[in-house]
Amino acid sequence: MPVWYNWRLMALIECIPNVSEGRRQDVLDACAAAITGAGARLLDVKPDATHHRTVFTFAGSAPAVKSAVLALFDTAVRAIDLRQHAGEHPRMGAVDVVPFVPIDGVTMADCVALAKDVGAEVASRHGIPVFLYEEAASAPSRRNLEDIRRGEFEGLAAKLSQPEWRPDFGPAAPHASAGACAIGARMPLIAYNINLATDRLDVAKKIAAAVRHSSGGLRFVKAMGVDLADRGIVQVSMNLTNHEKTPMSRVFELVKREAARYGVAVLESEIVGLVPASALSAAAAWYLQLEAFTDDQVLENRLK
Amino acid sequence: MPVWYNWRLMALIECIPNVSEGRRQDVLDACAAAITGAGARLLDVKPDATHHRTVFTFAGSAPAVKSAVLALFDTAVRAIDLRQHAGEHPRMGAVDVVPFVPIDGVTMADCVALAKDVGAEVASRHGIPVFLYEEAASAPSRRNLEDIRRGEFEGLAAKLSQPEWRPDFGPAAPHASAGACAIGARMPLIAYNINLATDRLDVAKKIAAAVRHSSGGLRFVKAMGVDLADRGIVQVSMNLTNHEKTPMSRVFELVKREAARYGVAVLESEIVGLVPASALSAAAAWYLQLEAFTDDQVLENRLK
Repeated sequence: MPVWYNWRLMALIECIPNVSEGRRQDVLDACAAAITGAGARLLDVKPDATHHRTVFTFAGSAPAVKSAVLALFDTAVRAIDLRQHAGEHPRMGAVDVVPFVPIDGVTMADCVALAKDVGAEVASRHGIPVFLYEEAASAPSRRNLEDIRRGEFEGLAAKLSQPEWRPDFGPAAPHASAGACAIGARMPLIAYNINLATDRLDVAKKIAAAVRHSSGGLRFVKAMGVDLADRGIVQVSMNLTNHEKTPMSRVFELVKREAARYGVAVLESEIVGLVPASALSAAAAWYLQLEAFTDDQVLENRLK
Repeated sequence: MPVWYNWRLMALIECIPNVSEGRRQDVLDACAAAITGAGARLLDVKPDATHHRTVFTFAGSAPAVKSAVLALFDTAVRAIDLRQHAGEHPRMGAVDVVPFVPIDGVTMADCVALAKDVGAEVASRHGIPVFLYEEAASAPSRRNLEDIRRGEFEGLAAKLSQPEWRPDFGPAAPHASAGACAIGARMPLIAYNINLATDRLDVAKKIAAAVRHSSGGLRFVKAMGVDLADRGIVQVSMNLTNHEKTPMSRVFELVKREAARYGVAVLESEIVGLVPASALSAAAAWYLQLEAFTDDQVLENRLK
């Protein structure tokens, strides 16, 4: 075996802030410029006029991502007034929600620490109440974003006055125009669909119920049965919310086995959007029965 | 589906020159400095005193890799005299063999063009005869490195005087001290072993014979049966010489099926050393039956 030169993975964090502006292009351009100007790599901007909301996706080292979020707040708080905002998507702040996702060379604990660091700074700079959520939550009742946001911007003053909804950082009263914000840490989502060689929607729904967490299935799977009528087939449409603890191979094999019980075969599967490299190498290692395999055996990882 | 920002893969070529010096550390240090000084990323240096030979592994863009090879020749040709060289490994030159391997964002044709470019420059700078080999070979009889090198340094003058062994670049006579060189292009090798839940060496040998190219098996597989006596098991030990045309999933499934014919199960498999990311994502895609999957769906690839 060769003795390889030492190497280190580049620490890489993804951040997907949701901003309550989906219509004014100049504001979106200013937000994008704030992110890239701070040294983060902007990967995607997805505005939605109906929701009056835009999802930015960017990535970088912890310091770059922190600077980008702070610059985004500076821009969005100046430009967005929630008192003038109406859209279909629930929201409570100008920058509504900021999740940090560990991608490479960083732990979830690093992302939790980053969420707290950024949350404290946002609160002290702007006087915005900040709630920590998901993996960064200070209590189990605050893990779920929907619970934090219930009541939305218009209900914030009343909500923040309740002792159980004191924010983690900042004042117990909303920012007049920018409301409040949820900042947290979570695993990357994988949007994963499995298409069945049948048009029986009842089978897709039964399989979805069998594999999803909410009805007795795998811990980090959300699933529903969907009719792909134009193709004459059905689909088990899933979100995998922690691919390390509930890996793709286990999900695929369980769906295939449940389908076989109805005499149905798996036609194909699909990943919608992006997938972390480690989720794919874990699937390869499982199916190939690879012993003692580590991601530092991937050639490209040597070059980071 | 989000509209993603444009991105390009970084063009990445691996180069694994074999140099006829495995004992003098100062010469090896000078070779390593020549490579890194030219802007390539040195990944590994593996000297062998018995062979009196060292394998350098480095990577970079085409211009960086070209500069590194030329700098390596400058250093090695000054420091190494084949007339004073004796080791166990066959050799014909101070820099004996230089393969270019496409890793990411480059084609085999790019690596063939690079081999020709570098070969012409080495010949004109140093007056060294250069043979193109493997994918860069100018004739089928020159694909195989062993055929080119047969006769070694000591037989070069006689060999080069034959019309069928005129070099592709440079004079039809050896460089007095630096001999000749083979420069070419090939796919990355994957060293892949499958361990069987049996101590029957005959089974491992029969499976190796069934799956390897030379005896009727898969086109890009070399294989032999090996006894792992200390563990009480046997192994099918393989080199996969083109993982795109003969993918890991097909090799694994064929070995597993052949083993079953003898009532033997696959215990585990192992990758020795490095593996390209695309070989793993292809295995994941095959087993998960992923439709329309491309490597640009891998999150990390967006960030290159």
